[in-house]
Amino acid sequence: MRQVAITGIGQTKIGEHWERSLRDLAGEALLAALQDAGRETADALFVGNMLSGMIDRQNQLGTAVADWIGFHGGVVKIESACSSGASAFRAGLMAVASGEMDSALVVGVEKMTDAAPTEVTSALATAADSDWELEQGVSFVGLNALIMRRYMHEYGWQHSDFAPFSINAHANAVHNPNARLPFPISAEMFQQANMIAAPINLLDASPIGDGAAAALIVPAENVRSEERAVLVAGSGSATDTISIHSRKDALFLQAAYQSAQRAYAQANVGPQDIDLFELHDAFSIMSALSLEACGFAERGQGPRLGLDNEIAPKGGRIPICTRGGLKARGHPVGATGMYQIVEVVQQLRGECGETQVDGARIGMAQNIGGSGASIVTHILKAI
Amino acid sequence: MRQVAITGIGQTKIGEHWERSLRDLAGEALLAALQDAGRETADALFVGNMLSGMIDRQNQLGTAVADWIGFHGGVVKIESACSSGASAFRAGLMAVASGEMDSALVVGVEKMTDAAPTEVTSALATAADSDWELEQGVSFVGLNALIMRRYMHEYGWQHSDFAPFSINAHANAVHNPNARLPFPISAEMFQQANMIAAPINLLDASPIGDGAAAALIVPAENVRSEERAVLVAGSGSATDTISIHSRKDALFLQAAYQSAQRAYAQANVGPQDIDLFELHDAFSIMSALSLEACGFAERGQGPRLGLDNEIAPKGGRIPICTRGGLKARGHPVGATGMYQIVEVVQQLRGECGETQVDGARIGMAQNIGGSGASIVTHILKAI
Repeated sequence: MRQVAITGIGQTKIGEHWERSLRDLAGEALLAALQDAGRETADALFVGNMLSGMIDRQNQLGTAVADWIGFHGGVVKIESACSSGASAFRAGLMAVASGEMDSALVVGVEKMTDAAPTEVTSALATAADSDWELEQGVSFVGLNALIMRRYMHEYGWQHSDFAPFSINAHANAVHNPNARLPFPISAEMFQQANMIAAPINLLDASPIGDGAAAALIVPAENVRSEERAVLVAGSGSATDTISIHSRKDALFLQAAYQSAQRAYAQANVGPQDIDLFELHDAFSIMSALSLEACGFAERGQGPRLGLDNEIAPKGGRIPICTRGGLKARGHPVGATGMYQIVEVVQQLRGECGETQVDGARIGMAQNIGGSGASIVTHILKAI
Repeated sequence: MRQVAITGIGQTKIGEHWERSLRDLAGEALLAALQDAGRETADALFVGNMLSGMIDRQNQLGTAVADWIGFHGGVVKIESACSSGASAFRAGLMAVASGEMDSALVVGVEKMTDAAPTEVTSALATAADSDWELEQGVSFVGLNALIMRRYMHEYGWQHSDFAPFSINAHANAVHNPNARLPFPISAEMFQQANMIAAPINLLDASPIGDGAAAALIVPAENVRSEERAVLVAGSGSATDTISIHSRKDALFLQAAYQSAQRAYAQANVGPQDIDLFELHDAFSIMSALSLEACGFAERGQGPRLGLDNEIAPKGGRIPICTRGGLKARGHPVGATGMYQIVEVVQQLRGECGETQVDGARIGMAQNIGGSGASIVTHILKAI
C-alpha cells in the first residue's frame, strides 16, 4: 500500500438549506475541493450518506451526484449510519493506496431539515438495532440516555460535569463560518436547557442539519510542490455489536479502541502525539467515552478533561471539536465524518484563526455509526 | 491488479420470508458460501442492499450482518439502487485484485415482502430521479412503461413480441429450487395478464421478494487445486444520467454499453464468446435493451432473439435468464446482482441440470440500477 495525501478540501455551511437539493450541496463541496486542489477531475467518486432514501426519496445517490457535476469516473456510495462520511473516505483512501486508482474524490452529504422532526427521529433510529432495540420503542437519543445514566451512576458524575464539552464546542463554533450554531453558551444555559431524554438535555445533544464536505485524495508521490497537502498517516475501522445490550461493557467503546489502535499503529504514533482530536460528540457522553477509548483519559475519567480545561484549542492538552464539533458545527449525519476530516486538514494547514491549535502537526478524526457499532478513525499529518 | 476467482457461492430461496430477518437471510447465504469454499472467514465483508433503511428500519446493515455472523474483519455497505449487489461484488473484487485484501465475502440481501405494496412501490421509486422524475408523480414501473411504449412505436413491435422473454424466464425457473415463481407461463397467459402501467402488464414485470446471495473472492494464485473456482475475467461499471429525459437517446442503455465494453476489453472477449448472459430483466423491455447495448442484437431488434428462440439454455445463440432471471427467479432488488453472479458460477461449474448451457465456459452478468443509470457488468470464466 502506498502513502496517500489530501490535496483539496471543500465544504458548505451547515444549515437549513430548504431551497437546495442534496446533489447541489454535494456538488458545491466537491467542486470546491477540486478548485482547492487545482485539479479538474478524479478517477473515482465516493459518496457517504445515510438517509437520502428515507428523507429525500433519492437512492443511488452516487449516480445522482455524478450526474449533477458531470462526473464520468467510477462511483461508489457507502452507508454506515452516522459514520458514512468516514467510511466513504476510508474506501476512497484504500482505492488510491492500493493502486486501484490514482485519485479519488470523497463527499459526505446529508439533507435532513426538510422533513418533520418526528420523521427525522424515526429515520435516525435506524442506526440502532431494528430487531432488538427499536422493537422495544426506544429512540436513538433514548439509547444514549441509558448509557449516560449508567455512566453517571457508575463513576459518580453529575450532569453539570458534562457542561465543558458543550461549552467548548459552542465557543469554537463562533469562529467557524460554516457552523450550524455559531454562538456561545454558558454553564447556566446548559443546566437549564429543555430535557430530551433524561439525563440528556438539548445542550447535551448535537443538532441535525443540511450540508456536504469533500476532499480529494491522491498518492503522496504525486503531490505537486505548490499543493498544501496533508498526509493520511493512519486509518482504522472496527465494528462492535449493533445492540448495546449485547456488549460485555456498555460503557467502553470497543470499536473506538480498536480503530484508534489500528490508526495509531499505522501512523506510528500514540495518543501523546495527537495535537487535536475531532471526535464524535453526537451527545456529550460520547465525548467522554471517545476520549477514554482512544487513550486520552482513564476509564470513567473523560469528564475530568473538560473540567480541567484540557480540551480547548488554546493551551489544552488534547483540543477537541476545534471547529464546533457535532454539537455546534452541526451533525448532518452522513456528512459529519467528512467535516471532521476537512477540519483536521484546516488545522494542519494553520487556517483556523481564533481556534487554531498552535503548531498542530498531527490530528485525529473519529466518526461513530450507531451507539458505537461502526467506528472509523483517521490520523492526518502535516507534510 | 492481480486476477481473482470465486471459490464459494451461497444463496437462499427467494420468497416471502416473513418469519426471518434481513441479517438471518444474509447470514445463511454467507455461511453457505464459506462452507462451499471450505474456508472459515475472510478479510472483509461487502454488503449490497438498497432498502433496509426504508423498509426494514435498519441502516448500517454491514455492521448488523457482521454482528450476526460473528465477523470481525472490515465491513463496507454499498448502495446503488437495484445494482447494489453487483456494485458490492465489484468493490470486493477491487479490494482483492488491488492487493488491499486477500479475501472478501460479498452478499446481496433484500427483504421487501413485509411492507405494504404501496410502501414498496414508493420505496422502489427512489431509484429514479427524486427531484425531476418523482416530483411529477411517476412510479418506477411508469418510467419503464414510457420507455417500452416509445420503443414499440419507434421500431414497430407489438406487445406480444416481448412474450418469449417472460416465457423463457419462467420455463427456466421451474428447474431452479431457489426461484420465486417456479411455474411455466404461456403466450396466452402473457397476453391476458392484468395491466400495471400500459403497455407493461403483470407478466412483463419481475416480482419483488426476500432473499440473499453471496460469494467468496480470493486471488486466483491462492486457489487450491480441490476448489471449483471460477475466474473473474472482466468487470465494468458505468453511469448515465439518472433521469431518462436528460438522455440524448432514451432507447439506448449507454451505461450498459460502456460497462460491457470495459468488461469485454478486460476479459479480452466479445459478445460472440459469451456462452450465457444473466441480464437484468426487471421488465421485458429491459431484456431487449440490454441485448442491444451489449452487442447481441442490432438497435431495435432485441425482441427478434426471443421470437427466433435464440435465448433458450438449450441450443440458443445467447441463452439468458437461465435460472429464471429477475422475472421468475425473482428480484429482491439489492440481492439480484449477487444472484446473477452465483448463477453464472453454477453454469460454469455445470450444476444447472435441465437448464445447463452445454459446454458453458464464459458467462456474463449485468445488473442495472434505476432506469439504466448505474450499470455493472461482470464476465466470469471457467478455469
